[in-house]
Parts: sequence; structure tokens; C-alpha cells
Amino acid sequence: MNKVIVVGAVAGGATAASQLRRLDPDAQITVYEKDRDMSFANCGLPYYLGNVVASRDDLLPITPDDFKQRKHIDVLVKHEVIAVDSHQKTVKVKNHSTGETFTDHYDTLILSPGARANQLNFNAPHLFTLRNMEDTDAIERFIEENHVERVLIVGGGYVSLEVLENMYLRGLKPTLIHRSEAINKHMDQDMNHVIFDILKDKKIPYRLNEEIASIDGKNVTFTSGLQETYDLIITGVGVKPNSDFLNNSGIHLDDKGYIPVNDRFQTNQPDVYALGDIITSHYRHVDLPAHIPLAWGAHRGASVIAEQLAGNKNITFKGFIGANIVKFFDCTLTSTGIAPNELKHFDYEVVEVKQTAHAGYYPNNAKLHLRVYYDKKSRQILRGVAVGQKGADKRIDVLTMAMMHQSTVDELTEFEVAYAPPYSHPKDALNMLGYKARP
Amino acid sequence: MNKVIVVGAVAGGATAASQLRRLDPDAQITVYEKDRDMSFANCGLPYYLGNVVASRDDLLPITPDDFKQRKHIDVLVKHEVIAVDSHQKTVKVKNHSTGETFTDHYDTLILSPGARANQLNFNAPHLFTLRNMEDTDAIERFIEENHVERVLIVGGGYVSLEVLENMYLRGLKPTLIHRSEAINKHMDQDMNHVIFDILKDKKIPYRLNEEIASIDGKNVTFTSGLQETYDLIITGVGVKPNSDFLNNSGIHLDDKGYIPVNDRFQTNQPDVYALGDIITSHYRHVDLPAHIPLAWGAHRGASVIAEQLAGNKNITFKGFIGANIVKFFDCTLTSTGIAPNELKHFDYEVVEVKQTAHAGYYPNNAKLHLRVYYDKKSRQILRGVAVGQKGADKRIDVLTMAMMHQSTVDELTEFEVAYAPPYSHPKDALNMLGYKARP
Repeated sequence: MNKVIVVGAVAGGATAASQLRRLDPDAQITVYEKDRDMSFANCGLPYYLGNVVASRDDLLPITPDDFKQRKHIDVLVKHEVIAVDSHQKTVKVKNHSTGETFTDHYDTLILSPGARANQLNFNAPHLFTLRNMEDTDAIERFIEENHVERVLIVGGGYVSLEVLENMYLRGLKPTLIHRSEAINKHMDQDMNHVIFDILKDKKIPYRLNEEIASIDGKNVTFTSGLQETYDLIITGVGVKPNSDFLNNSGIHLDDKGYIPVNDRFQTNQPDVYALGDIITSHYRHVDLPAHIPLAWGAHRGASVIAEQLAGNKNITFKGFIGANIVKFFDCTLTSTGIAPNELKHFDYEVVEVKQTAHAGYYPNNAKLHLRVYYDKKSRQILRGVAVGQKGADKRIDVLTMAMMHQSTVDELTEFEVAYAPPYSHPKDALNMLGYKARP
Repeated sequence: MNKVIVVGAVAGGATAASQLRRLDPDAQITVYEKDRDMSFANCGLPYYLGNVVASRDDLLPITPDDFKQRKHIDVLVKHEVIAVDSHQKTVKVKNHSTGETFTDHYDTLILSPGARANQLNFNAPHLFTLRNMEDTDAIERFIEENHVERVLIVGGGYVSLEVLENMYLRGLKPTLIHRSEAINKHMDQDMNHVIFDILKDKKIPYRLNEEIASIDGKNVTFTSGLQETYDLIITGVGVKPNSDFLNNSGIHLDDKGYIPVNDRFQTNQPDVYALGDIITSHYRHVDLPAHIPLAWGAHRGASVIAEQLAGNKNITFKGFIGANIVKFFDCTLTSTGIAPNELKHFDYEVVEVKQTAHAGYYPNNAKLHLRVYYDKKSRQILRGVAVGQKGADKRIDVLTMAMMHQSTVDELTEFEVAYAPPYSHPKDALNMLGYKARP
């Protein structure tokens, strides 16, 4: 009988445990989770704060009791794995409820500890980060109990944008600051202008190249010299991998603290797997390392690891494409492929179209801005970017599938779009990219 | 100098002429069009009748005068090519305005005559078909001048469904009849039930296995024995290829009257090309003939023919996948790949998922029903079908791209969806198809 220990009970860990049980009814599976909740819906947290998600229960689809009853998996929350000995095959666990520490043995170890939010170095009771359900509950309670009106959002990543939108939808008055000009960094910076257009349109203040200098009660002094008062501050200023406990474990970490894995999600140590936000892997379509800490990868990792442990060795991970997407009010901003700062590894060309989502005469049309980067010599697509109110997600998903198959930009002319006036053009925007790229 | 004659000035012909001009400034290009209008937007006609498309001008983006001025292409409307001599390289043309007939010579002939609507054999002034702008104008005028209220839609193809919806949106009272139980035949019949659900919901009467037996003024007697009165009857009971003029031309027609073409859109005769609804070609993903009379193929054909004539011989047509889509009220019905009646050529399996378009906790969700047929041995995807109010078009477009690359059903597990709660699930419905298909 395989004794499996899983570290972390959110997307990666809980799904890996669940998938493994499906394939192996006999494995003894224990999941240690350092925080309070298992398997909460991270991506839904901002929408809960915006009252867009009606019920808190929807974000906590399962409890340790459910998991035990339905799947015979032990999930111990508030149990933090604080050390791993990959030679003895043991983990050292701290029970945060009792304070006691104990050692547990594994045959197989699956690491999905995720990352934690960077904290700004200010001591203020109205300063929060949003990373898990506990954070969400704390912010919700703070808003309810403190007549919050003015909210400062610090950071311009996609979660901050979602939080800002949801504070606005809740009827609060958000302000956005970001320390540089480069917000939402999955996107091409020039295509982020729609974000600023929306902020201006909704009269939501924002300032770039701005940081907090000091906080004194509700009074915030900024590096620009401005002083303003805020009832609530939510920061999203990057994350750190939760891998400190792996120092001296024998498990290799990269220089940023992430765990490199192979195409079976194996670490350098026998019987130790890793998945989720903690790993670095590789791109599928090009020969570059990839760190894509998003939900799809965690779920795919869970499935591949479970198959590996069940003996289906031919089911492996082919690599990331890099698909990501964020809704900001009525607009969708999405990209796939390598990141903007990785283009420097290629001799590339870029082609773009500014079209509409569907036939011009069909009502409720919307602009669609689509761009593709491709290798000058091989003409292979490296990266795709789309912005628009309609159909941006569709085009990026199609591009991702194309890139899975090493498609060239020219082959986009051959894409047979499902056309009717409400959906596209007889020549889709994707076709037009291919036609425009012709040498 | 290449003297090019194009037969037909709608999607295929007008686009071929235009694309050729772009690549060859010197060619002498003449387009003969038997009807009144060039280059109208076929797919928009039902929506014009429903007042969904506001302006008639939107459906007629270009006139022969424009074409002459901007592109130096002669378009002669009401000029019907009534015979072709592929040995002499001549066409015989009848000018329907004057009644005169003349002969013209070509170096290159491009055939895009399209198809015509089958007519029911009844003589009634309120009986119409909808195939071109002239039909549209006639129906519009009839509705305006005759206080039309009750409209009978005969036939259950996708155009009839669009016409029915638009008659309803216009405030008229449509009834649908179809001669068999098999409506909207691009779709899997069991997935068409949403159409009947919508009809019932909107209290729109429909009867299957029903035909017109006789028409006496406004009184219609049906084969069921029922008698009803209708102010307007619009029939959509199939089409016939406009290829009678090619008898004795030396150009090969198949047994249904369509023109087989190769991957350069060449017919069996030198310097004679064909495109649009008139052709039969082949599927890209499987080795079967394909007749896909839709807009995308006409535009792709136009581009390939223009490239061929410009000497770019390596740009060829790789074949159809078979993507098609129709909106019926709030619902999208779409499929890609071989048709249901072509599955018999394969030893296939089917897998389906009934999911939702996006994360369950995110509001305004909608059911999504997705199905894939795949070859039992090779596991290659043969056909995909989707029905839903949201995201069906996206999944089918992604499947089409997958099928362009001979994807297996198993590879769908590897599709990296661009995930955020408003767009999908961390495991997309496409992923789930792959997971569910696991042996």
C-alpha cells in the first residue's frame, strides 16, 4: 500500500489527492494544509467581495469531513509541514491548533504548498492582502464593521484589477496605485490602455509610478508627496513561493525558490512530486522554461501525477502554452504563449488586426484587437494577445490550440471559423492575421 | 495580360476578383452576374427582415460602380453566362436587360455561380424563397403592403430557423413546418431539442412530418389534413446547383451537378477554376469528399485561386473541416467535422459532457452540452457538436483548430484553456471530453 503525503490542500494538492483516489482505491492519502480552509475557489475571491458571487458556500465546495467521507482522504488543516527529509522519506509537521510537532513517513510525497502574498512593511489594521478565504473573510468583516468607503488598491496585477472592479461594484470608492507604469504584465503594455480608458470613464482615480511612503492611521503619504485618507488598503504586490520548509530537504529549488519538475512533475528526489504555483516547468511550443502559476496547470499537474502513480507512465505533461485571461468591467484582456519579456530570445515579427467581433451589420458589435508574434524564420507563433468586449477569449483559446500544434502564422489563413453574423466574419480576425503576415 | 472572366458576383466571385486584383494590377477582369446585385451579405438577409440589421445599405457594401472605380474590375449584373466552351475558351452571355446574347473570350475562367432555392410547385403570390437581396426586397415589400400577420415557414434548415426567429422579432406570428423529423441537419438530432424547447416557450407553433398539400388564396391545406390561413409563406426546402449552363462545356460535374475541384480549386479543364457553393472538395482531417457550401470556404477559395493565378503555386487548399453555426434566439447550435450521416464510414466512439459555460459561482452562467465523435482505433476526432447559450462557438472553434492538426480526443486533456471565472472552468469542458474518453 502506497502511503501518500500531500502538502497543501488547495487547487493542486486537493485535486491530486482526489485524482489519485479515483485511480487507486487503496492508497493511504494524507493532506497537510497549513491554513484554515481546503480547496477554496481562489479565483472567485474578488467576486465574493464584490457581491457578484452571492454565496460564500459556493467558494468552499468541500470540507475535510466531506473529503474523508466521500474519498477516504485525511485532510488536516492548520497542519504545516515545516521540514522534509527526502532520504528518510519523512515530513515534520506542526499542528498550529495545539502547537505540537510530529513526524510522518511517506512512500510518495506530493508538494503543492503554493505561494504567499508579499506584505508591505507597514503596521496598519486596515492593510490587507487577498490570497485565501481567511483573507477574504477578514476583509469582508472589516468592510462590514468599519463603514468603509475609500479603498486603496496597491498594485496593478490581474488580481488587483479584479479586486478594484469588485470594490467599485460593491459601491465603494477605489483608487489604484502602481509602483511602475507596467500594469497587468501578462499583456502587451500598449494594449492595456483600455484599462486606463475604463478607469477614466468610471472616474476611478489611478496613479502610476506611485507607492506608499508611510501610513498614519487612515492617512497615507505617498512617494509622490500626496497625502490621502483611506478606510481600507488592499495590496497585491507580488508573491513568494512557500518553499522555505524545503531548505535542507535535498529537494532542488531554483534561485527564486521554485521547484523545477520534469514532464512527470517529479522533483530531483525519488518519489517526490510537485505541482501548482510552486513549480517551474517548460513551454510546450518553444524551448524555454516556464513558470505559469495558474489554475489550469495545477489541475493538469494533479491529473498527470495521479496517472503516474497509478502506473500510466505514458501520460506526461507536454508543457505550458501560457494562456491567461482577465475580465476588467466589460473588457477582456487575454494572452497566450511566451511573456512579453521572453520575446527577446527570438528573432520575431508581429502582426495585428483591429477588427470587430462579428459581422458589422449585426447589432451589439464590439472592437477586437488581436496580435500575434511569430518567429521570423520558422514563422511559428510564439505569442498571441487579444483585447475586446466580445470574442477575445475565443480567439486566444483557438490560438492556444494552434500553438499546441506548433502552428505557423501562415496556417491561420486555413482556420475554418464557424461563421454566422453574430459570431464572426467570413474571414475571421484569426484568418486576417495570417493573411496580413504574408511575406 | 491575363483576361479573367468570373461567373457570379456574390461571396466567391466578387472576392476572387478583388483578391486577384490585389495580386495582379494588370489582369483584365470581368464579372458576369445573372441577378441584380453584387456582393450582398447573404448571411444577413434574415436579420434585415427581422429589423435586427437596421440599414439595407449595410447588406450591400459595394456596387459595380465602386468596384470599377476602386479596383478596375467590370461587374455586369443581369448578365447570365448561359454556356461555356472550355476548348475555345469562350463563354456565351445573355444580357437580361436587353435580351441580347454575346460571346466573350477568357484566358482564365472562375466559376462561382452558386446555387438556387428549390421552389415548391404552387402558384401563390404570397409564396417566397429567400436566397438573395431581390428576394429580401420582395418579401419586405410584401410585408409592408399587405398587413402580414401569420407567416408559414416551410423547412427546418438553418436559414429557415433564422427566418422564423426574425419574423417573430418583427412582431409577426410564425409557424414552422418540416417534412420530416430531421431539422437543422448539421446537428445531432437529439441536440436539436433546444429548438423545440424554445418554440414551445415562445408559443410558436411547429409541426414535423408536415407538408403543404395545396394552397388556395390564403388557405393552406396540409398533408396532415389541417387547414390554416397564412398571409405569407417563406420556403426553405433545399437548393440546386446553378450548373445547368455547364452541360456540354467539357467541365466535369458530379451526379448532383456540383463541380469537383482539386486543392488549387481547378476543375478538370485547363484554366477553369471554381469556388463557393458550386464545388465539392474534400475534408482536411479525414479522407472523404466534402461539400460545405458556406461563406468561409468561398472566401478561402477566392484567396487560393488569386494566389494560384499570381504564381504562388504552393498556396493550396488543405480541405474543409466542416464548421457551421446557427443562433436560434438565445441559443447557439454549432458543429464541426464530418456530418452525422458520414459517421458510418468510421468505427467511432462518442463522448459528451454537460457542463456550464464557466465557473458555477460566477453569475449569468448557462448550460453547455458538448460532444465529440472519435475514431475508435486512431482516437482522432472526427466531429464535434456544441449547444448552449454561452461559449458553444468558442469550443467548436477550438475543436476545429484541433482537427486541423489531426488531434486525438486524448490530446484534449492537454488544452490549456485561458481560465478566469467568467470564461471557463480550470478544467474546461474540452478537457473533460478528453478525460472522459480515457480508455
